Amino acid sequence: MYGIILAGGSGSRLWPLSRELYPKQLLNINSDKSLLQSTFDRLKHCMPEKNIVSITNIKHSSNVRMQLSEISQTPVILSEPTAKNTAPAIVLAAKFIMQKSNSDPVILVVPSDHLIIDNDKFLSTVNKGEKLAREGYIVTFGIKPDYPETGYGYINTSEQLGDGFKVKEFVEKPDFETAEKYLRDGTYFWNSGIFMFKASTLLNEAASHAPVIAKISEEFDFSKSDEIPFINFDKMPNISIDYAIMEKSSKIALVKLESDWNDLGSWKSIYDVSKKDENGNVFIGHVLDKDSKNSFVYASSKLVATVGLEDTIIVETEDAILACKKDQTQNVKHIYDTLKKQNDNTHLIHKTVYRPWGFYTVIAQGQGFLTKIIHVNTGQKLSVQSHNFRSEHWVVLTGKAKVVLEGKELILSPGHSVDIPVKAIHSLQNPFEEGLEIIEVQKGDPLIEEDIIRYEDMYGRV
Amino acid sequence: MYGIILAGGSGSRLWPLSRELYPKQLLNINSDKSLLQSTFDRLKHCMPEKNIVSITNIKHSSNVRMQLSEISQTPVILSEPTAKNTAPAIVLAAKFIMQKSNSDPVILVVPSDHLIIDNDKFLSTVNKGEKLAREGYIVTFGIKPDYPETGYGYINTSEQLGDGFKVKEFVEKPDFETAEKYLRDGTYFWNSGIFMFKASTLLNEAASHAPVIAKISEEFDFSKSDEIPFINFDKMPNISIDYAIMEKSSKIALVKLESDWNDLGSWKSIYDVSKKDENGNVFIGHVLDKDSKNSFVYASSKLVATVGLEDTIIVETEDAILACKKDQTQNVKHIYDTLKKQNDNTHLIHKTVYRPWGFYTVIAQGQGFLTKIIHVNTGQKLSVQSHNFRSEHWVVLTGKAKVVLEGKELILSPGHSVDIPVKAIHSLQNPFEEGLEIIEVQKGDPLIEEDIIRYEDMYGRV
Repeated sequence: MYGIILAGGSGSRLWPLSRELYPKQLLNINSDKSLLQSTFDRLKHCMPEKNIVSITNIKHSSNVRMQLSEISQTPVILSEPTAKNTAPAIVLAAKFIMQKSNSDPVILVVPSDHLIIDNDKFLSTVNKGEKLAREGYIVTFGIKPDYPETGYGYINTSEQLGDGFKVKEFVEKPDFETAEKYLRDGTYFWNSGIFMFKASTLLNEAASHAPVIAKISEEFDFSKSDEIPFINFDKMPNISIDYAIMEKSSKIALVKLESDWNDLGSWKSIYDVSKKDENGNVFIGHVLDKDSKNSFVYASSKLVATVGLEDTIIVETEDAILACKKDQTQNVKHIYDTLKKQNDNTHLIHKTVYRPWGFYTVIAQGQGFLTKIIHVNTGQKLSVQSHNFRSEHWVVLTGKAKVVLEGKELILSPGHSVDIPVKAIHSLQNPFEEGLEIIEVQKGDPLIEEDIIRYEDMYGRV
Repeated sequence: MYGIILAGGSGSRLWPLSRELYPKQLLNINSDKSLLQSTFDRLKHCMPEKNIVSITNIKHSSNVRMQLSEISQTPVILSEPTAKNTAPAIVLAAKFIMQKSNSDPVILVVPSDHLIIDNDKFLSTVNKGEKLAREGYIVTFGIKPDYPETGYGYINTSEQLGDGFKVKEFVEKPDFETAEKYLRDGTYFWNSGIFMFKASTLLNEAASHAPVIAKISEEFDFSKSDEIPFINFDKMPNISIDYAIMEKSSKIALVKLESDWNDLGSWKSIYDVSKKDENGNVFIGHVLDKDSKNSFVYASSKLVATVGLEDTIIVETEDAILACKKDQTQNVKHIYDTLKKQNDNTHLIHKTVYRPWGFYTVIAQGQGFLTKIIHVNTGQKLSVQSHNFRSEHWVVLTGKAKVVLEGKELILSPGHSVDIPVKAIHSLQNPFEEGLEIIEVQKGDPLIEEDIIRYEDMYGRV
């Protein structure tokens, strides 16, 4: 069996913890592993590690690679050069697997940002689905509703089919009364976004129901490179697998997902799956409370003091704080969209940005200056670079730095500093065993991240 | 007429905006002036500016001096070397005024942290009180209750006396039923903490009812110095003027305060006096809201996004966030007390600390390092100093710096930097016309503010 992890995602619904450039699947909220890493582990439970292909947007690929590299020797990652929803991604990834394996395997497709804890039950459900997939069905996994949820799509089933059911129709998010009817009927399931099929089944169904996607995908040849060229991929229609294929095909079966499942689609659902104290509260980080009830408070960097709150969500991050009534967490997307419209970067990135060599945190900025704390992992090196408009000043905090400035090599210990003048060619490296932490003060006009000329880079960014 | 401004105060009730070392009277929440400055202006409306004496705790005196210097040429400020409540402060300040003026004037005593907008009505009330004060009464100003408040002390009156009333008794904060009875009775007033008396009246009443305070105050002689020696002041009992004198004296009159009045004793009262939008919300700073009602949101440094809140207070500061149900703001003191008990500095200071030469903000700190942005006002100079355990690294951001390092003078422009080694004698000065802003990175072990040897200081701190 092979697997496809869908690791795109926009990061709007768990703002401010998720950002456009740091979406939900990269977060670890109540666990030491991110949702992406947990998803990878779950698939490892079902198939050989080397058979798992993750597909993500290019803007997330360095973060996806970094996280998967922590738990896997050689993660396979495809980068979409632009966002085109799930249908092009799944069809291309299926083609990639067929070509690389030179076979027609069964493929399991899973989102990377859902919470499933019971991996054994998940495996037994997958095994049931596999039989139907081998018989030529596209198997979708459905969750038996236990309340009339209006935020999910539903799938209606008819007669029994092997260990599952025939699918009658896919239906959109219902209103409350309709959702109640679905619940009573007993033939409706929530759409989990988890699928399974033989590679050839999907490609044939794509040829019938999504001929444009099928035709464009013929242009890709993964025998020489794993890259997805922008010029070809950009022609793909922007469409979900549900619309493009699932709702049109007659070869759809549904298998009931036996394991626990939560899509973590809002702060309320994060609250729902979290362990509560005796007053129904969830406190993460430095929280000091007096008399609150049924509330969720996440403090990432500062003290959050709460007094007498009820059914309230507070999420504190370095540059933005959310305070939200628990039954209105779906409106957080509205805040995110407004920030995006206002070109407020608070929707886009965190103050901490991950790079292949480590990460940096912006600690202060103002007219013409910017200050970062830069963490360089052991054995890593930033690109050899220069800047046309800014000077930089480094002070080592912990570890040792190897600096090459205009060809001259310096080794700096904690408390030592160096000035990098405008236009000077320089590099920062940590060839030592301890992690390196420096403070960088940038001064310049204009002061923009793009003012960088790279001469050499061990991560291929020249 | 003379005036005494009581400018002590602990800063617990408006935490996290107020701190132990930055109490309520120093804040300007909805105004360009602080409550202390507004109080000073109100007194200037009633008496010559030079007749106003402010008395504060030594830990606030540099902030009090800085704020009053912005609006007055030569503010008179007495510093209590330790906190002893209001009775010792008022008796000593009255003695100070008698001695300095060599007369027996009428003195108006006001807290520095209340909000009164109508200074004309205040003046006319004061003029009514003055007559009674000249007749030998200690006049207290009372507010006619318009609802059964349980958070204030009450004063019960009997028959008319001049423009006021005779006072029958002072009563403690009542329960709700008692407060309702007081409201119905019509003879009860809220205790505003504003008093007026002839200096000799107060000193005589002190001699009768607070003989210990009267006796100790004889030890002070302000003819040579305005300083209050610790060794004498520390013997004073810790007691309020109400307990020590007002409740015991038979010479108390009450005049009804005609102006508006709010003690701003909680975030709810700040909300109450603020201008609301059509949904009853008060938003200050960078706030983005969706569907909140009757809430107060104060964002000092970051984005605060609110969704569907009702009757909620959110106060964001650089290092602490408060989220509080509006009817429970009295419990904020509980948070403050807990932090103090835990030795958590979040109760004590802000990240921004004011100094005679300007101010600094801590932007990052960690094991063995601390980073500040330092603002040096034009014409100012930090003390000539050295450190035994830490090195410092300065990068100029705006303005120009005059640095003297081991006797060598440097002029640094934006982007220039200098390293101050451990034990090197150095000074930082801004003799130029523009404000100076530098980033300082401290590296040391131990890294403590006390690691400073001062050689020269233009503010007398050697």
